[in-house]
Amino acid sequence: MLGILRKKPVDKLIEVLGKGRVKTSLVERKLYAYDATPIPIERALPSAVVFPESHEEVTLLVKVCYEEGIPIFPRGAGSGLTGGAVPTLEKGVVVSFERMNRFELNLDNATAEVQPGVITAQFQEQVERLGLFYPPDPSSYKYSTLGGNIAENAGGPRCLKYGVTREYVLGLTAVVKEGQTLRTGNPVIKDVAGYDITKLLVGSEGTLGLITSATLKLIPKPKARSTALALFNNLEDVGRAVTKIFTSGIFPSALEFMDSDAIRAVEDYKPVGLPRVEALLLIEVDGSPQGVAEDIKGIEELLKPMGVEVRTARSKEEEEKLWSARKSLGPALGNLRSGKINEDIVIPRIYLSEAIPRFREIARKYELLMVIFGHIGDGNLHVNLLYDKSNPEEEHRAERAVDEVFEVALRYQGSITGEHGVGLTKKKFLKWQFGEVGYELLKGIKMLFDPKNLFNPGKVVEL
Amino acid sequence: MLGILRKKPVDKLIEVLGKGRVKTSLVERKLYAYDATPIPIERALPSAVVFPESHEEVTLLVKVCYEEGIPIFPRGAGSGLTGGAVPTLEKGVVVSFERMNRFELNLDNATAEVQPGVITAQFQEQVERLGLFYPPDPSSYKYSTLGGNIAENAGGPRCLKYGVTREYVLGLTAVVKEGQTLRTGNPVIKDVAGYDITKLLVGSEGTLGLITSATLKLIPKPKARSTALALFNNLEDVGRAVTKIFTSGIFPSALEFMDSDAIRAVEDYKPVGLPRVEALLLIEVDGSPQGVAEDIKGIEELLKPMGVEVRTARSKEEEEKLWSARKSLGPALGNLRSGKINEDIVIPRIYLSEAIPRFREIARKYELLMVIFGHIGDGNLHVNLLYDKSNPEEEHRAERAVDEVFEVALRYQGSITGEHGVGLTKKKFLKWQFGEVGYELLKGIKMLFDPKNLFNPGKVVEL
Repeated sequence: MLGILRKKPVDKLIEVLGKGRVKTSLVERKLYAYDATPIPIERALPSAVVFPESHEEVTLLVKVCYEEGIPIFPRGAGSGLTGGAVPTLEKGVVVSFERMNRFELNLDNATAEVQPGVITAQFQEQVERLGLFYPPDPSSYKYSTLGGNIAENAGGPRCLKYGVTREYVLGLTAVVKEGQTLRTGNPVIKDVAGYDITKLLVGSEGTLGLITSATLKLIPKPKARSTALALFNNLEDVGRAVTKIFTSGIFPSALEFMDSDAIRAVEDYKPVGLPRVEALLLIEVDGSPQGVAEDIKGIEELLKPMGVEVRTARSKEEEEKLWSARKSLGPALGNLRSGKINEDIVIPRIYLSEAIPRFREIARKYELLMVIFGHIGDGNLHVNLLYDKSNPEEEHRAERAVDEVFEVALRYQGSITGEHGVGLTKKKFLKWQFGEVGYELLKGIKMLFDPKNLFNPGKVVEL
Repeated sequence: MLGILRKKPVDKLIEVLGKGRVKTSLVERKLYAYDATPIPIERALPSAVVFPESHEEVTLLVKVCYEEGIPIFPRGAGSGLTGGAVPTLEKGVVVSFERMNRFELNLDNATAEVQPGVITAQFQEQVERLGLFYPPDPSSYKYSTLGGNIAENAGGPRCLKYGVTREYVLGLTAVVKEGQTLRTGNPVIKDVAGYDITKLLVGSEGTLGLITSATLKLIPKPKARSTALALFNNLEDVGRAVTKIFTSGIFPSALEFMDSDAIRAVEDYKPVGLPRVEALLLIEVDGSPQGVAEDIKGIEELLKPMGVEVRTARSKEEEEKLWSARKSLGPALGNLRSGKINEDIVIPRIYLSEAIPRFREIARKYELLMVIFGHIGDGNLHVNLLYDKSNPEEEHRAERAVDEVFEVALRYQGSITGEHGVGLTKKKFLKWQFGEVGYELLKGIKMLFDPKNLFNPGKVVEL
């Protein structure tokens, strides 16, 4: 009898939030059980998908979940690559922030108040229309959300000069613990009061609480931008060229690296006339119009004595062509093989010419095609392992190869992730990177914010 | 009998570290019981001053302190203004890092490995000699240490464009808990693995553990720099001018604000010919030589229609004169009154013209002289309350006035500290700024890293 009378946890959510906020159809539960992770991961159908529209509704739903012991799986656009947004427990609910998509710009303060569901590109467009700039540029920016970007501490090519998402988050409102409201920071750039809880929440991948709004920093939008292409006949010169540029006082806004296989992949897929060299650097500078011209000329003069040819985009079209080559790398690789594991490891750039041959050895050992490109200025390399999806044995080999790629990254004082986060897929390597003392502190922090382990449980740290 | 045989805790330190590392003379204990805090604070003579020379020695000393329950008071140069380095318990030991002052630059990686006792200015000189740049510029940089800067998350005028110390700390080695070694981060710019413990330690004011080395990020050193002076006849125009500059795409490397009293103080003390206006902005831009010239011209053109006169430094000498005016403000104020409380509150710059009259009201109410200057671009205002040190009643009034200054800062969505940290003097306001939920989390973090509350106890948070 009691069993029949007792309400199901999901019914309690509906009772508190209203039917319009809680979806339980099989279609919706299935739709929200995925993200963009390219490899097989543990996943479960959630018991419901919840669509809060305000901080208050998020508070209510967390309270119910905490009372009922329902795991909470927060979700931005689901464009993550490490399983961060995927529900892994059947009792769990997915919390989609797509209806919390408002933002307010304060031009005079150069700040913005944003809800987590705002699409990054839409926000950036509006900001730039007013002459300001929000630099973080994950390649998913056209559909990913600011909430997802904050949860993952997203970055892209421009982060070399401008820093990652973390550097632009001045304050947060979040729901933590059993439904408590936490406010951190202020709409000011400088604030050294207390421990930096704001930056602790950035990059926490939804495991410490649910972010319901953020105060973002905006900066002046550079007036001009220019791109050059540097062609290298050997790998060692790439690092040397970067040092020369840096120590000359030129701070590029992006330094993108492509190896010979990456060049070939692009040219085979959608030819833009990239030269067949050992490696190339796509160099972007920004600033005032005259400053930009001066910097490009400076780069030409610096690299010429090294025997490195520098080609400058002479028009907007040529520039776009160069960048489209870089941006078409993803689809180009998809053209080579049906399966692709794109790992975003980081290596100090001094070890680049040593580490890349190690990666190639791994590819040879597992008989896989490997393409390397990435953001050389900040050491963030995308090591792509390509395989035939219809061949489970090859897929398995690719997964084993990835483990060794991580090992090389850590051996060279690098990181297992520069952009994609830990989520589910990199969990086992996190302990290695942090060591026991650090890992215990991560667990302690998790338990402090989420004593019942209900916020995105099983992601990032294992309790 | 037992009492005689039992060793004093300090003897145990000597036994483990050797006599050369542990000083117990009254002179030394007295010398290390002070910092630069201008107001009376709680302080105690420490039982000893310890001078470790390596990470291993720091580990040994923390282990002894943890076993014996000895409070640990870490100290950089003692230039802090909020009592952060001051010992407050007689059983405590001061840990001076002055003998851990080595650093190593990695030009090709644009990073540095530094020990905590390195003097900031000496480090910066060496970095700049190689064509790189470490921007954080607290006004104490000539004598303060990198360890102290990291503990306080130090900043200065240039942080508007370049960010505070936190943005340059890529990784840390620290001794936490009962003597455990914690390593965080790597010599890479991008790293999103796990929670950001590095940034949590930055600005923790020595309360979470002892930092024994840091990996710092270096950036290209701008080739040129130029300064202009903008003269305002009313306060409201200052904010408007900043917005105009920002939205035009010009990103100044510093935007320093002086009110009419600050101008008068400088001119009375050491005249440089500053005009007697309501307010002035010292605007610095940096970048490539042509870019800098273009920006200065742009600023002139932007502000002219507002009726704001812009004077450009035509020579290195004129430029230095302008900056010396800004830098002589501290001594100039000392010339006006014997006592000075310099509060580093932060206010969103949109509220500047509203908040400044509120501050003036406080000064009138307590019959004190007040001078306001600061870093307007990031909202960090130095509100100086001047008083006669030989008059205890006036000193007391100044202290009460400070409380109200903080209240105004918090009312306008600001912070109680943009540069100086919380230490002892701002503790009571921290709870107000963080709210109960946030403050409980701060306490939880403190207990996680320092379960016995021995690292700089009684600073920042009150357990």
